[in-house]
Amino acid sequence: MPELRKDPVTRRWVIIATERAARPTDFPRGEVQANASETCPFCEGREARTPPEIAAIRRPGTNPDEPGWQVRVVANKYPALRIEGSTDVTADGVFEGMGGVGAHEVIIETPRHTDHPAVMPPAQLASVLWMYRERYRDLDRDERFKYLLLFRNHGRSAGASLSHPHSQLIALPIVPKRAMEELEGAQQYFAREGRCIYCDILHQEEAQRTRLVWQNEDFVAFAPYAAWCPFELWILPRRHLASFGDLGDGHLLPLAGALHQVLGRLHTCLGNPPYNYIIHTAPYEGKTGHFYHWHIEVIPRLSQVAGFEWGSGFYINTVPPEDAARYLREAALPAPVAQEAPAG
Amino acid sequence: MPELRKDPVTRRWVIIATERAARPTDFPRGEVQANASETCPFCEGREARTPPEIAAIRRPGTNPDEPGWQVRVVANKYPALRIEGSTDVTADGVFEGMGGVGAHEVIIETPRHTDHPAVMPPAQLASVLWMYRERYRDLDRDERFKYLLLFRNHGRSAGASLSHPHSQLIALPIVPKRAMEELEGAQQYFAREGRCIYCDILHQEEAQRTRLVWQNEDFVAFAPYAAWCPFELWILPRRHLASFGDLGDGHLLPLAGALHQVLGRLHTCLGNPPYNYIIHTAPYEGKTGHFYHWHIEVIPRLSQVAGFEWGSGFYINTVPPEDAARYLREAALPAPVAQEAPAG
Repeated sequence: MPELRKDPVTRRWVIIATERAARPTDFPRGEVQANASETCPFCEGREARTPPEIAAIRRPGTNPDEPGWQVRVVANKYPALRIEGSTDVTADGVFEGMGGVGAHEVIIETPRHTDHPAVMPPAQLASVLWMYRERYRDLDRDERFKYLLLFRNHGRSAGASLSHPHSQLIALPIVPKRAMEELEGAQQYFAREGRCIYCDILHQEEAQRTRLVWQNEDFVAFAPYAAWCPFELWILPRRHLASFGDLGDGHLLPLAGALHQVLGRLHTCLGNPPYNYIIHTAPYEGKTGHFYHWHIEVIPRLSQVAGFEWGSGFYINTVPPEDAARYLREAALPAPVAQEAPAG
Repeated sequence: MPELRKDPVTRRWVIIATERAARPTDFPRGEVQANASETCPFCEGREARTPPEIAAIRRPGTNPDEPGWQVRVVANKYPALRIEGSTDVTADGVFEGMGGVGAHEVIIETPRHTDHPAVMPPAQLASVLWMYRERYRDLDRDERFKYLLLFRNHGRSAGASLSHPHSQLIALPIVPKRAMEELEGAQQYFAREGRCIYCDILHQEEAQRTRLVWQNEDFVAFAPYAAWCPFELWILPRRHLASFGDLGDGHLLPLAGALHQVLGRLHTCLGNPPYNYIIHTAPYEGKTGHFYHWHIEVIPRLSQVAGFEWGSGFYINTVPPEDAARYLREAALPAPVAQEAPAG
């Protein structure tokens, strides 16, 4: 019997289509292809082929836009938004617009072309997360920006045009719709129950265990109850904290560990699938600390989403999250890629 | 300079990325492939290969599940929802669920395998729309259903597994998220302004003309101001009416004409692109008549949507709607497919 489930935060209903249930092997494999490293602008030694360096973790004594870095941030060569300009709202009858002002940056996660988070040592991943947080804090100083969208596209069909490991950030002069929905849902729950809805979800997932994938002392990874696509996963910090920018130093390596476990198990279970992850965090402004709870959502790109699903906001998920969690709990981690001595 | 635009109804912000602006020829062509007609279960003469007929427009004297039909409705062989069962809500801590009860039907639009709305005579399309309305009204009688989702997937990458022209309907025991957002946005606008927001959009589009594609006495087709994907189009009835089920007989052929124009121009301009259209209508229950306004949204599937766009609800559209409308105004209609004498 198929089941309808409601996302407790955004109130989106999803069909869990058990009668069409798919197993991990039902999805196409090996979709993620590497681009040639010979011409890759993100590889070490080709620093001149990107826009100038905004920030980097580097070996002492090395200069910006030269080799010797471990993580490197540059402007997106084809930015969706421009850094210069004003954010005045223009009204035109029923319509409202604004100049396309914002930052669009690329975080190159490693000098090594074929590395990626599923096989990268957690220490390297922790450096990437440290850089996310640095950029989060730095862009917070620009008063025009209201929200920071930090995300990773893995594989061409997930939107990655280059295979060299990288994440992106977009600093926005508005709060995007999905973030608004989460904030509103969480605020209303707090007004009603006096508690953070994400903390309550966390406690219920830990008590029920059927959707849990992995946990350590600081983070819990699970398949959400109303997962809208096969193998959707959330990583939630145990500590109630609204903003990713407030993540403490002591939580960087535990978060890297959780991400490594989740992406590693997806890698083995589904054969290096394309995926996206997005950091869901509080907006730069507003008192959201008591009711919002930052987290990471991982979205494997396994099936074609019918346009009617976007258009209607109504999703059909062919893998019950309880099944997805079980497959992932049983999955092994991939063998780590042989590493040279760290550059740092 | 890129521009940020806000959807006046749902309040979703979209980047109109003028600096990455794409022309119609930048998108891949000829993606839509026909399946072999030799084995097609939707072709005339193979009625036994579908579930039993629910409704049909037939030549007098012919029997259900036999040849002689013009439009035919059958249950979906792999339904996302089941028609039997109760819609009691089950609560489990923070989570809320419901049995997956609903109807999932296929509307076979023509006995001819290679026909489709862009090349079909408007009279045939009007018969399809008549059947949509019949099914809308019939399913309204089932008190468990709260909303009817009527949609068409054209091309494999838009979710169509068979190329024989068909639409689908899903009758739902809940109102999907996107419909709720439109209802809430329209209701709030009505409370503030005392007018229907869709009527106001219509008047502004007609006054500004830059996003208009085509119009007749009863319907207006345009590219919406905050289009979230390239060549998104809306068809709005001039007459304020909340429910598609209340569409008058006299409006069936004018609507078929508008749909034929819009899909025909997309066909020529973009080389038979994959697309979805969705009928956005009022829920079966609730007094929405004064503020809601039914319409059709057409979503061509031209570019890969990055998962972060779904995940964040934040979209980047590389074709300004003013450009899309101009391309489509200038496009010719495709040559009609040679038709046999109508079956009816």
